[in-house]
Amino acid sequence: MNEALAMSHLNLIQGRRPAVHCLTNTVVQSLTANMLLAVGAIPSMSSDITEVSDFTSRSQALLINLGTLDQARKDAIQAAITSAKANNIPWILDPVLIDRAPARLVYAQELIAQEPTVVRGNVGEIAALGADPKSLARDSRSIVAVTGATDFITDGRRETELRVGHELMSRVTGIGCAGTAVIAAFCAVAGSAYRFDAVVSGLYILGKTGEIAAQKAPGPGAFAATILDEIYFTGQSSSDEGQPK
Amino acid sequence: MNEALAMSHLNLIQGRRPAVHCLTNTVVQSLTANMLLAVGAIPSMSSDITEVSDFTSRSQALLINLGTLDQARKDAIQAAITSAKANNIPWILDPVLIDRAPARLVYAQELIAQEPTVVRGNVGEIAALGADPKSLARDSRSIVAVTGATDFITDGRRETELRVGHELMSRVTGIGCAGTAVIAAFCAVAGSAYRFDAVVSGLYILGKTGEIAAQKAPGPGAFAATILDEIYFTGQSSSDEGQPK
Amino acid sequence: MNEALAMSHLNLIQGRRPAVHCLTNTVVQSLTANMLLAVGAIPSMSSDITEVSDFTSRSQALLINLGTLDQARKDAIQAAITSAKANNIPWILDPVLIDRAPARLVYAQELIAQEPTVVRGNVGEIAALGADPKSLARDSRSIVAVTGATDFITDGRRETELRVGHELMSRVTGIGCAGTAVIAAFCAVAGSAYRFDAVVSGLYILGKTGEIAAQKAPGPGAFAATILDEIYFTGQSSSDEGQPK
Repeated sequence: MNEALAMSHLNLIQGRRPAVHCLTNTVVQSLTANMLLAVGAIPSMSSDITEVSDFTSRSQALLINLGTLDQARKDAIQAAITSAKANNIPWILDPVLIDRAPARLVYAQELIAQEPTVVRGNVGEIAALGADPKSLARDSRSIVAVTGATDFITDGRRETELRVGHELMSRVTGIGCAGTAVIAAFCAVAGSAYRFDAVVSGLYILGKTGEIAAQKAPGPGAFAATILDEIYFTGQSSSDEGQPK
Repeated sequence: MNEALAMSHLNLIQGRRPAVHCLTNTVVQSLTANMLLAVGAIPSMSSDITEVSDFTSRSQALLINLGTLDQARKDAIQAAITSAKANNIPWILDPVLIDRAPARLVYAQELIAQEPTVVRGNVGEIAALGADPKSLARDSRSIVAVTGATDFITDGRRETELRVGHELMSRVTGIGCAGTAVIAAFCAVAGSAYRFDAVVSGLYILGKTGEIAAQKAPGPGAFAATILDEIYFTGQSSSDEGQPK
Repeated sequence: MNEALAMSHLNLIQGRRPAVHCLTNTVVQSLTANMLLAVGAIPSMSSDITEVSDFTSRSQALLINLGTLDQARKDAIQAAITSAKANNIPWILDPVLIDRAPARLVYAQELIAQEPTVVRGNVGEIAALGADPKSLARDSRSIVAVTGATDFITDGRRETELRVGHELMSRVTGIGCAGTAVIAAFCAVAGSAYRFDAVVSGLYILGKTGEIAAQKAPGPGAFAATILDEIYFTGQSSSDEGQPK
């Protein structure tokens, strides 16, 4: 992994302050918004069908997370995806817990057929989709990121492994979901040819700041605040490095 | 700004523990409830049409925030406003992100026609309403608070500027929304003739505690916890000052 | 109270990592999930009628909290309770704020007629149900926990009082609701004959960690993070004690 590449993506986010529209579950909305703000992006979270297309078309990336769904939210998700595709905006799918409920898995497969820019899930979630990550990436023309103790990222041709992060990240609700939002922010500032690097860079920054936070805050309550701080400080330092001395 | 006036309002909140009913977006509900508890008020957040009138009529202020809307929530908002007006309870409108979606702007204008006690927005949100703050205040018979690096508060006749707060407040999701809840708590303990002072006092306390918190906590994660602590400590000290020595 | 008994329940949670499905209000979802993760359980929070039965039947306990209701959520609650009863899974009812809205009280009574495993409320909420706790426990065949400065737990025959906890726990939104989730996690690892002990143990751990957290963090913002840390550390030490030296 090229740390300088990750920092340059992060620096771009500081400069451009991309808008990321999020259709995400109510459990993790607050952490997701705070992680986007910490990284330098601007979150919005409306799921009202009368306005979701407006929010999406004015954003630079769209996040779709399948937690706490209902029919109204499914309608909003479709409107947002349609708007993203029409406006050539990258959209990132987090098929959370599809390995726990058959109806949700079927729904995730319908969305993947629409070729998301990125699919990010844990080992169980990606396995539930019934293909190895490389085949899934090729079939859906997506970048697939399988996260866990080791992260594996592939676009069907290239593949990268990251060994970053800390066990405490699994003890705070929504770190994975908010991590997908970080990926969205990184994709927001990368042209389509550079999105594989953007996904790897986003996961690298998340994992490294998680390691630092776990050193400073050994319990999950303080850790949640500290990883936000570390992401923010890393973003600030990425900007400083871009300044003339 | 008269700091003693702000502290006396805060002391009243400590003594009366006013109930504030909140129809606010799901992203910021937790921070909003925690900020109301820190300041000494008692939050409730039901948006069920079968009970929202009961919650409102038993409260001392009502907060309406336009984030994460749907039709059911719009119905609940109207029922709550009707109950507030019937019971002479101050109601505070936060027209969040109306500058980002035309449908939401139209809806906000319908609510403003019902003459909220206070409208609190940032520069872009208030500008989207198409009038300068003083005209808006006169037309809607509201107190209008435009918040940002400088806060501007007017009731159409009087006007006050506050230079308080810190940039980190914009890096935590919902500090603005929760700040509107603080205004609601201050209005809850002020008679109608004193609500302009109440709004100024609430924004002053929020801004000053934000400054203290930013000194103690330089990143957004720790800052969010620290501003709650500082509001709580300031409230405790406001009570102490009211005690005989 | 037998502290060793509480620690052995907590140790069981560390070993088994029970799944707890939660239908809880949007204000407290994040804290509830984080408290379940801190104690060692695995939370899920879907309220979609098409999947709530699947989530419930694959869980070891079900939490029902009556905040932020609407009709869709009521439908999901009934589906989840039916699934829990069919699969012999303990279900825990938190009738939050039923003393504030008549429609919610009526709904709570309908649910209590279905004989929840545990009902946990504060003094006002339990009083609104119109019977003393022991009669309520006998009539509903439930364990009733009345929490406050003193906690009182009864199954209609036995009764226990706990004097644990700290005033700051009432200054953080959702500590009570999340505490009911902790009870659910403790019930998840206890056979039906041991659930009274499980409820007492869960409330004891919550109260004692609250006392420690209040010593370390005197304001409500830092307190919320610190009680999560202390629950996590206590869980880790419960596992250590179970290891051979």
